[in-house]
Amino acid sequence: MKNVTIGIDIGGTSTKYGLTDRDGNIYFQGEISTQQFNEFTDYVKALSDKLREELSGLKVHLLGIGVGAANGNYYKGTIEHATNLKWKGIIPLAELLKQEFNVPVLVTNDANAAAVGEMVYGAARNMKDFIVITLGTGLGSGIVCNGHLVNGKHGIAGEIGHTTVNYAGRYCNCGKRGCLETYVSATGIKRTVYKLLADHLEPSELRGVSFEDLDTRMITDAALRGDIVALAAFEYTGRILGTKLAETVVHTDPEAIFLFGGLSLAGDLIFKPTIKHMELNLMPIFRGKVKVLPSGLQNQAAPILGASSLVWNYLEEKESREIQLLNN
Amino acid sequence: MKNVTIGIDIGGTSTKYGLTDRDGNIYFQGEISTQQFNEFTDYVKALSDKLREELSGLKVHLLGIGVGAANGNYYKGTIEHATNLKWKGIIPLAELLKQEFNVPVLVTNDANAAAVGEMVYGAARNMKDFIVITLGTGLGSGIVCNGHLVNGKHGIAGEIGHTTVNYAGRYCNCGKRGCLETYVSATGIKRTVYKLLADHLEPSELRGVSFEDLDTRMITDAALRGDIVALAAFEYTGRILGTKLAETVVHTDPEAIFLFGGLSLAGDLIFKPTIKHMELNLMPIFRGKVKVLPSGLQNQAAPILGASSLVWNYLEEKESREIQLLNN
Repeated sequence: MKNVTIGIDIGGTSTKYGLTDRDGNIYFQGEISTQQFNEFTDYVKALSDKLREELSGLKVHLLGIGVGAANGNYYKGTIEHATNLKWKGIIPLAELLKQEFNVPVLVTNDANAAAVGEMVYGAARNMKDFIVITLGTGLGSGIVCNGHLVNGKHGIAGEIGHTTVNYAGRYCNCGKRGCLETYVSATGIKRTVYKLLADHLEPSELRGVSFEDLDTRMITDAALRGDIVALAAFEYTGRILGTKLAETVVHTDPEAIFLFGGLSLAGDLIFKPTIKHMELNLMPIFRGKVKVLPSGLQNQAAPILGASSLVWNYLEEKESREIQLLNN
Repeated sequence: MKNVTIGIDIGGTSTKYGLTDRDGNIYFQGEISTQQFNEFTDYVKALSDKLREELSGLKVHLLGIGVGAANGNYYKGTIEHATNLKWKGIIPLAELLKQEFNVPVLVTNDANAAAVGEMVYGAARNMKDFIVITLGTGLGSGIVCNGHLVNGKHGIAGEIGHTTVNYAGRYCNCGKRGCLETYVSATGIKRTVYKLLADHLEPSELRGVSFEDLDTRMITDAALRGDIVALAAFEYTGRILGTKLAETVVHTDPEAIFLFGGLSLAGDLIFKPTIKHMELNLMPIFRGKVKVLPSGLQNQAAPILGASSLVWNYLEEKESREIQLLNN
């Protein structure tokens, strides 16, 4: 029987799930609504029923379940005070799923899951020191040092999105002002387009689009057509990201920084200014040493792979620890 | 026979050495000149002769030698392009000392040695995630995550002193402008005193002291006597350090940050504004969670203990790895 793990990615609107093996082959994948459930326990029940239905008949050995969710706490297996979910307070997710399937359940935030996914299945398979930056609605990050994900003392490491670009800058959901993610994210680049449209006189096809309708894809397409404001928005975003990455790099000296998610699909438009301004601002001994690369998991299944990778990583680390304990 | 290790701290002027056991007891310690030797090989010969002389007659088992030195490279056992030494280029220190004593030789920079020392002998003995900031001529840092020192891909992690406070700010030895260490270090606070004396009209006992004569001790004593410029210099320094630590904390989520060295001995004068401004600028979910503490190794022997701790840490990690390899 094939060893497999379940990966679950909980978003505010919908939850994606899938079954994978150690090589990243996907046996099934699907989706249920997250927001239709008023009670968290009903949600877990419905999700579990769905998974059992998909599993039935498959000749596999389920080793564990990995979950990526905003505000997921790895140490406690909980989701804590997530602003994108209707269930408030601290949700004991791992405990409830363990009752349903009686296998190890690992929970972490989506950016940490992306980092472990990059190590287990992606472009960081031979790396011990790297960082993944996820560019979605916000900016998440997962840091790997010495081959291990950095969770930190309180399980909340990797919040590079909340370092400060400008102390009197844009308002952030976290309660501060001028955080990196208010500039560098799908929402950040929209805010930048609107700022540039306000500050400058240049014509732009984006002048006809409302803030609510504007998205990264439209800005990318406009830039590719040579729209001066869209191009300036990418330059502005890359300058801020690159300048900030120069600060991050001197902390943990990574081999590479991977960009993942919507904004990173814009290719040279975002990579070129990012790399240029990172190099310009780096402490000289680091220059030319740190690669900035697209994630190796740029596909539909990435969130499922990221979540399921938590289980493989957990089991492989556990095996090492047990061998040590047996011999001490 | 007692197991012991040698710790060597190479400074630009002099080299300190000592012999310690796992509990931090010191069997001997001494000092030789660093700068009197024009050739590096003569220096290693003289240092080795001195160590053999001190070791002779002692009933001990030497397990290894640890060396802390500016620009020490852990992976290669070299000192590379150190600006504080007269020997240029890449110095194969571990190789030469190994020829003399035939034991493992570990080399790292002084801040990383301080971090390992804090973990092996100091106030971080039960911590897995912490940061040590050394405040000397410059600002060094050593980062520990998951119980392991972060060396990084190229062995140069932990250069928090070269994150940027002000892109148009003070000139730094590294070639950039506005680096943290140009504000927060023994040299940084001197520069701040001179800036404040230039900007303001207030009387100060420091108006009678030349830049060359001024040191941290004099600024601290003046502040303790209520000197308004000296007090403002500590406030200024702590504000910049605290604001920057708020950025560092969200990367690795440490349990504590330890301040080590001259400036940290000023107690509340530096700790109070540092903690205040770190908390003010932290992402809200981190507030109240991260301790800022004085190093537990604040004594004359600290550099020797830091250097010798590299050997204990190396041997203990090696033992774990060997047990794993045997069983795989």
